[in-house]
Amino acid sequence: MTVFKNKKTPHKPGFFFLGLLVFNITMQAQILRVEPPNWWVGFKNTELQLLVYGENIGATIPEINYSGVNIIKVHQAKSPNYLFIDLKIDNTAQAGTFNIKFQGKHNTSLEYTYELKTRVKKAEDYVGFNSSDAMYLITPDRFANGDVKNDIQENLNETTLNRTDDYGRHGGDIRGIINHLDYIQNLGFTSIWPTPLLINDMNSSSYHGYAITDFYQVDPRFGTLQDYKELSQDMQNRGLKLIMDMVANHCGSEHWWMKDLPFSDWVNQQAEYIAKADLKNSNHRRTTNQDSYASEIDKKEMTEGWFVPSMPDLNQKNPFMASYIIQNNIWWIETLGLSGIRQDTYPYSDKYFMSRWAKTIMDEYPNFSIVGEEWSTNPLLVRYWQTGTPNKEGYESYLSSTMDFPMQENIINALNEDENWATGFVKMYEGLAMDFAYTKPENLLIFPDNHDMDRVFTQLNEDVVNTKMALSYMFLMPRIVQVYYGTEILMQNTKKPDDHGLIRSDFPGGWTADPVNAFEGSGLTAAQKNMQQFVGSLLRYRKKSLAIHKGKTIHFAPKDNIYVLSRSATEETVVLILNKNETSFTLHLNRFKELKLEGKTLKNIITGKYLEWNSTLELQEKGPLLLTTKL
Amino acid sequence: MTVFKNKKTPHKPGFFFLGLLVFNITMQAQILRVEPPNWWVGFKNTELQLLVYGENIGATIPEINYSGVNIIKVHQAKSPNYLFIDLKIDNTAQAGTFNIKFQGKHNTSLEYTYELKTRVKKAEDYVGFNSSDAMYLITPDRFANGDVKNDIQENLNETTLNRTDDYGRHGGDIRGIINHLDYIQNLGFTSIWPTPLLINDMNSSSYHGYAITDFYQVDPRFGTLQDYKELSQDMQNRGLKLIMDMVANHCGSEHWWMKDLPFSDWVNQQAEYIAKADLKNSNHRRTTNQDSYASEIDKKEMTEGWFVPSMPDLNQKNPFMASYIIQNNIWWIETLGLSGIRQDTYPYSDKYFMSRWAKTIMDEYPNFSIVGEEWSTNPLLVRYWQTGTPNKEGYESYLSSTMDFPMQENIINALNEDENWATGFVKMYEGLAMDFAYTKPENLLIFPDNHDMDRVFTQLNEDVVNTKMALSYMFLMPRIVQVYYGTEILMQNTKKPDDHGLIRSDFPGGWTADPVNAFEGSGLTAAQKNMQQFVGSLLRYRKKSLAIHKGKTIHFAPKDNIYVLSRSATEETVVLILNKNETSFTLHLNRFKELKLEGKTLKNIITGKYLEWNSTLELQEKGPLLLTTKL
Repeated sequence: MTVFKNKKTPHKPGFFFLGLLVFNITMQAQILRVEPPNWWVGFKNTELQLLVYGENIGATIPEINYSGVNIIKVHQAKSPNYLFIDLKIDNTAQAGTFNIKFQGKHNTSLEYTYELKTRVKKAEDYVGFNSSDAMYLITPDRFANGDVKNDIQENLNETTLNRTDDYGRHGGDIRGIINHLDYIQNLGFTSIWPTPLLINDMNSSSYHGYAITDFYQVDPRFGTLQDYKELSQDMQNRGLKLIMDMVANHCGSEHWWMKDLPFSDWVNQQAEYIAKADLKNSNHRRTTNQDSYASEIDKKEMTEGWFVPSMPDLNQKNPFMASYIIQNNIWWIETLGLSGIRQDTYPYSDKYFMSRWAKTIMDEYPNFSIVGEEWSTNPLLVRYWQTGTPNKEGYESYLSSTMDFPMQENIINALNEDENWATGFVKMYEGLAMDFAYTKPENLLIFPDNHDMDRVFTQLNEDVVNTKMALSYMFLMPRIVQVYYGTEILMQNTKKPDDHGLIRSDFPGGWTADPVNAFEGSGLTAAQKNMQQFVGSLLRYRKKSLAIHKGKTIHFAPKDNIYVLSRSATEETVVLILNKNETSFTLHLNRFKELKLEGKTLKNIITGKYLEWNSTLELQEKGPLLLTTKL
Repeated sequence: MTVFKNKKTPHKPGFFFLGLLVFNITMQAQILRVEPPNWWVGFKNTELQLLVYGENIGATIPEINYSGVNIIKVHQAKSPNYLFIDLKIDNTAQAGTFNIKFQGKHNTSLEYTYELKTRVKKAEDYVGFNSSDAMYLITPDRFANGDVKNDIQENLNETTLNRTDDYGRHGGDIRGIINHLDYIQNLGFTSIWPTPLLINDMNSSSYHGYAITDFYQVDPRFGTLQDYKELSQDMQNRGLKLIMDMVANHCGSEHWWMKDLPFSDWVNQQAEYIAKADLKNSNHRRTTNQDSYASEIDKKEMTEGWFVPSMPDLNQKNPFMASYIIQNNIWWIETLGLSGIRQDTYPYSDKYFMSRWAKTIMDEYPNFSIVGEEWSTNPLLVRYWQTGTPNKEGYESYLSSTMDFPMQENIINALNEDENWATGFVKMYEGLAMDFAYTKPENLLIFPDNHDMDRVFTQLNEDVVNTKMALSYMFLMPRIVQVYYGTEILMQNTKKPDDHGLIRSDFPGGWTADPVNAFEGSGLTAAQKNMQQFVGSLLRYRKKSLAIHKGKTIHFAPKDNIYVLSRSATEETVVLILNKNETSFTLHLNRFKELKLEGKTLKNIITGKYLEWNSTLELQEKGPLLLTTKL
């Protein structure tokens, strides 16, 4: 039997908190958790599997007496402290509460009150992100500390707050995001993806959020469930879309269930974990997911190896685990009114489970979006995961979006390289040409950088002009755009490349005493202010630009150190001229006549100045020139 | 009117040779060419378009009186010296000859005897190459001089023979290939691809064959049509397959028609050519073929630009040119009894024409093979051209095979690099994993090198062991194999990388006085002999190995500087262990238990020695270890 950790507060009303039940001869059942903590009526899928956790609960027989709700099957686990109850919730069931009675031996029994809620929004109104969106990616601990009262939680494992430690907690929180929605929205962003906000009750490095220790609890250092709901509601009121970062592959080693695992295969390598034997990390050979020649042992090591030793690898082949994850994610979508999900370490989970997971969500929310992280610079691998791709083996992911690591790398390389036949802009040109291979390239997510890679300003050797070229190209491509917080003010990690803690530095102004306040612009260098304005001008234009959202794309093979990309819808043509010439250059426009711009007046999207598109264009300086026919 | 070049001999019986008809006031029609020079009864496609060339032939009216053969339509060209006649050859038509009467003005007329032959083989018996084949690629001028009498042809433009000039003619010929079929066959090859044998009556560098100046004439320096037929027949008798190297994209600038072009768009940039204005080379931006964002101007410059200034770019959008090329190729297939075609510079021709071309051939010869040259190391581009690929835009190439430039590069890089997480063998491992993206990866053509790239021994820095690893991997992959002549004796071009003339050096022993004779083995170094034996042992094994031809492939992620690939059919498992460890290494075999080899005896394919597959294998030295269960 297990000593239940008493540092943790119960996170849902209606839970019986069991403090010090250390050893009880009668083994009387107690209910510590029922998950999902509530459900809703009116889903297409009428099945629900409850995980019930409590001492010796496995020996009880559950009963429900509520119209439209029936127990289909009851499953005991290997641990006596779990019970899994399969419910059928008919379409006739009404929202309300009912008791689940757990009948034990010797006429003992327990009751638990469970709630079925009414759904707030129609399924169709959960509208995902698409190529009209620009997403602001935030590491919440590092963005803004809106509530200093929640910074230190004495009952959790990591109690220190230390802003000088790149891997420590800095105090940023949900309130910090709520407080700065104006800033984000004014920059032209339409969507926010915060990295995970659920509790990471780890002993150290808990700030990043990917070692979740309870999939139903908000990390109290980030705030409460109520705060999360408020963030979502505020965003919905503003027309902003909230993306939740989900982790199906693993949990944190301090997850509550690690001390009392329900089955012998709840996590992969569970036997080794329990025996404190050597755990194997994933072999990280991600091509085993696609490779029809991959050996069985390599495939097993890829998905059953642990991502890192502190993150137990969830076994989605266990059907109870599979249901747990799917229901948990639907619970969050419904509770928060999400617009989309970002799924972490996508190819490390069982791919057939991931397909079932995404299909279940998309069946329930037809306009939803999910973006999966396949960190590969090979478009063949990235396309494999996008829904609709005609994979030879028939694999269908049901995943609307994947991340465009290939183009991210192409763009960085193109700008860092000198112009030659096979280097420089041609990397972007030939890279973008690969869009022919994607079912819907416009549903890919492009990004200058993210929380796991060097800041783009560092990747581009702190070259401001190249950074502007990278951003303007990404913002004009047929893509969903994602920008990591602080990229707009040239945040960098040049001193320590690949240092994750430094990459996720504090946003200046997010803490009261910060000498620089980027939200208000005070203390920023001229270059930072200029970039902030550049990003804002461009994203605000993008937000209303049908040409960028859905327009036809034409680009011209790089020539004379110049690369031209255009997007056009009925009444609007946007042209991006990327120019690497250090001295002034006369661009002959005859080559671009198919753009049908002759004689037209175009506006510079950044400066607001006008020019005529005639026989030539004088390019004065290296950099991006952004022109539109929308005056 | 044109002066017809009198250096050229007529190449077909029945042609009226017109020597010095310089200016003839009466403009009486003469017939210089009817092409195709003959045809056959019994094709599925009953249409035939004759190109008739002769002074003022365009002003005549052709008539045919032969049962089952009807003139459907007659087309005049822009030049008065051409007539295109559309014939319908009914299934009832019998083989035989008939006269075509060309009725001129003032009751003048000409007659031309045309032959319809009986087909020698059934359409199904033209059996192409596949993954059971290993192809020997020969540059005929450089392989063996079997007939010194044909070395110099005084009536052609290039009359010198100079073996010390890498770009001059060296005298190799068809007879030289015929003489050494034993050598080629004994090495285990099943197929021969000679680079083009058709006439290149160019002023210089005519040896390579890709500047064809008459698509119906064998270069007399290589021999006669009869020699070519003899080569084909000898090969068929031996069960060897003959591949013909076709060029649909361009001709040589000395092609006979360049002095009197039939239409104003027979070749691309014809106006510029005639005006002696600047001709544009292709922009070589091959991705424009796939890129849905490519500009019209880039697409045009890609396919309408000339490959090089000495090779006029054929305009396959001209329907007469299109028919000319297709019929010419069928004429050669039928005349020689070919097994397959290698199509040069595949993506430089109009892709819709190439699709029609391949479909027409494959419709006529259902078991035929065609391999197209797309020199790209990106599998996305290579797969685009293979038949059956579900391309988004619906493009279907009807091309059975493409060249595996991606894996060629991966293998070279893998062997030249040190072993690390992302370098070395992993390039081969992750590269081969991309086979999931090909409809039929086993129909791709893999090659250590070819006539356009550095010799593999040079690419691998003259490392014999790495060369053996490259070859053994390629020979075991699920692929068609192609080896360039001389690779088996470590031919190299290390002194001048990328020097095409040097790459295509003479095969030692191909000329009578050669001090070294690789055919007989005399004068070869020990390393050369050893490699020759290695290639022979392996290819002879491959020739009979169902496991290699069609077996299941399993490979294991590289580990400890070792990469293991296996192929297996019902009764046969072949294992290739590539080992980069410089000192002896104990390989634990438990990892490979899914190969089900425990306790089995395996034979070393190269040495013939036996070993037991038990718990470990002692790898004594760096290199490939090739084992089979077939004892």
